[in-house]
Amino acid sequence: QVVEQTAIQLLTELGQFGGLANGGVTRLVYDQAWVDAMTYTLKTAAAQGMQVHIDAMGNGFMTYPGVDQTVIAAGSHIDTVQQGGIYDGAYGVVAAKLAMTQLVAEFGQPKHTMTAVAFSEEEGSRFPVSFSGSRHYAQVGDVAPDLKDAQGISFDTARRQAVAQLTGNFPLAEQPLPKEWLELHIEQGPVLEEAGYPLGVVSAICEQKRFTITLTGQANHAGTTPQHLRRDALKAAARLIVQLDDLAQKIGEPFVFTVGEISVTPGSSNVIPGQAVFSVDIRHPQKTVVDEFEAKMRQMVADSAPVSGTVDCWMDSRPAVMDPRLVRQFESLLTQQGYQYLTLPSGAGHDTQIMNLKVPTAMLFVPSRGGISHAPAEYTAPAALEAGVAMLKAQLYHECY
Amino acid sequence: QVVEQTAIQLLTELGQFGGLANGGVTRLVYDQAWVDAMTYTLKTAAAQGMQVHIDAMGNGFMTYPGVDQTVIAAGSHIDTVQQGGIYDGAYGVVAAKLAMTQLVAEFGQPKHTMTAVAFSEEEGSRFPVSFSGSRHYAQVGDVAPDLKDAQGISFDTARRQAVAQLTGNFPLAEQPLPKEWLELHIEQGPVLEEAGYPLGVVSAICEQKRFTITLTGQANHAGTTPQHLRRDALKAAARLIVQLDDLAQKIGEPFVFTVGEISVTPGSSNVIPGQAVFSVDIRHPQKTVVDEFEAKMRQMVADSAPVSGTVDCWMDSRPAVMDPRLVRQFESLLTQQGYQYLTLPSGAGHDTQIMNLKVPTAMLFVPSRGGISHAPAEYTAPAALEAGVAMLKAQLYHECY
Ligand SMILES: NC(=O)NCCC(=O)O
Ligand SMILES: NC(=O)NCCC(=O)O
Repeated sequence: QVVEQTAIQLLTELGQFGGLANGGVTRLVYDQAWVDAMTYTLKTAAAQGMQVHIDAMGNGFMTYPGVDQTVIAAGSHIDTVQQGGIYDGAYGVVAAKLAMTQLVAEFGQPKHTMTAVAFSEEEGSRFPVSFSGSRHYAQVGDVAPDLKDAQGISFDTARRQAVAQLTGNFPLAEQPLPKEWLELHIEQGPVLEEAGYPLGVVSAICEQKRFTITLTGQANHAGTTPQHLRRDALKAAARLIVQLDDLAQKIGEPFVFTVGEISVTPGSSNVIPGQAVFSVDIRHPQKTVVDEFEAKMRQMVADSAPVSGTVDCWMDSRPAVMDPRLVRQFESLLTQQGYQYLTLPSGAGHDTQIMNLKVPTAMLFVPSRGGISHAPAEYTAPAALEAGVAMLKAQLYHECY
Repeated sequence: QVVEQTAIQLLTELGQFGGLANGGVTRLVYDQAWVDAMTYTLKTAAAQGMQVHIDAMGNGFMTYPGVDQTVIAAGSHIDTVQQGGIYDGAYGVVAAKLAMTQLVAEFGQPKHTMTAVAFSEEEGSRFPVSFSGSRHYAQVGDVAPDLKDAQGISFDTARRQAVAQLTGNFPLAEQPLPKEWLELHIEQGPVLEEAGYPLGVVSAICEQKRFTITLTGQANHAGTTPQHLRRDALKAAARLIVQLDDLAQKIGEPFVFTVGEISVTPGSSNVIPGQAVFSVDIRHPQKTVVDEFEAKMRQMVADSAPVSGTVDCWMDSRPAVMDPRLVRQFESLLTQQGYQYLTLPSGAGHDTQIMNLKVPTAMLFVPSRGGISHAPAEYTAPAALEAGVAMLKAQLYHECY
């Protein structure tokens, strides 16, 4: 009986699908481990009396019908990164299922319909796209079907094969938009642990922009070219990164600025780099702060003589402000139940930011030990997992009964 | 008759071996183009009355015996980089051959024996070693025979096969150390052209050190890790490169500092780099200047908290000061013949630095258009090539007759 299980038990079970010897999980969207994990998730839900469906994207839905057909949905994703942990995404799925099952066991049929959702994909670890599951559910535009994975398999081919396996067991039915969306997730950062809080209420998911900056100078001999005649693309990149980091420090937290990729050509120890290419990832809960940084960055790149530069923005994910009523209610339920909590922005992207484009949303975080995520060492204490489930349950009770 | 040819004619002929459609040359040590170029060089020398030999390394020697057996040698290398030009190395070989041939045609047998040398390899473009030809001739230690090229062929296998082809045509005989060594080479940098001189006398070949610096921080999520908790290896690398560049500017020319290679791990736009690895190449005519920079650099790396760093010095080529008498003599001959010249250090390494370990040496530079070298666009005006040959001839006359 799920109602008697703990979140860590359910997570450990789900972690078997794609489980690795080092305790981690690799479960990429539509691969066999993913099909098995989705099948297991829906089968166990059906066994405990939930109505189960999948949609064309392979999202899984587990429903306790209410007196009316207004849907309150909660959940997260069941795909992982390469060599990820057992918590990221999976926790939000098992927690929603567990909280709803406990509610029905204790209080019977809800007024509104409660649906636990297992999104097909959030991580972008197989195909060069993320949030393809929630994008479909939120009806904000599907993935281009001919996107290819590293093996050259198209998104559509992989999707069809996986969904065909699932429709052998579960009815295929597109689901209507819910009235509200709730997501429980690990923080993936160190803030809650450092500050000593067992739970966090998300105020907003940050505006996030990513860029590729290309600086072009002149490749030349490292020994024979005097310093004053050089147009060294890497030295210009280093100065730019330092300037940008100084600007980021001036803006202050929670602003974050990351250069995660850099390469130079031709790339020999005795050749001055003629070109340097690097990524920029910037995030802040307010779009204006991100935009101001971008404007200054573009000016700095324009001013980086003796090299010339280009700035290409290839990702712009708008900030998602959580619904004030749902946030306040999470906060007052937390206070009622005697929990200390922090209200904080999420620097990581989540399915909730997609749902937020259409419906009121709220998110709850549990601490990540050492701030570690996307790694086998990902860990959240069982007590914190239970606290998260309890608060999701309290919020669902308030919204659905 | 070589004596009637110009340097550019001979260079154009030699440039056919390994010649590319774009006007460049790829002629790596011991490959077929290299064997053909060496064969052509020695056959034409024999045809004009020079005694020709090869040694076990495949170095080619072209000799006009003198009244005595004291040898004055001049030359350079016949290998090229990948996609190099027709001048680098080849110019010093054809110039020595041409100058000696003209001298014998005009003045008959010299007092001292004159040998033009075509070194087998200087560029280090096939095997991870350079100067293997001059190292052998100068008796300063041969290459490890099991060094592999990119195809996995060992140095010794390649060497044996190439030398076997040459010994079909030319006698194999190890050559004694010369009494003096002279090398004519393209500058490979922009200094002579910028300053408007047709010729340069090399004062010294720079001390050159190369390092790999590894900075280790902590990889982490770009969105969820607050700035103050980051240990970002790339930001630390950028700050270090800027500090080092500032130090290089303070030291001033002719000091040069280059970071030609950089890589970060894990290398995703939304992951803070946990490690950054980059190369450092520093050069100056005085070893003390290079050593002081190194000491300060090691201190900066040690001080680069919150990351930790290591510095690995994998190349230390000592400065080679040219022989004062030979330099003065080049200078006075240039003045006598009405040439304006610059006396300058060489930032590039040359076979002469190896010969300099054992015998007095001198070098002459001709300008490189735009300072370009190691590229098909490498170019020196024919008149400058002839001026170089004329001055090498004058110096050889002074030393050998
Ligand atoms: N939740 C999460 O780790 N998303 C990955 C995308 C990002 O925010 O960098
Ligand atoms: N002459 C020359 O280009 N040597 C290559 C080695 C170097 O000095 O970087």
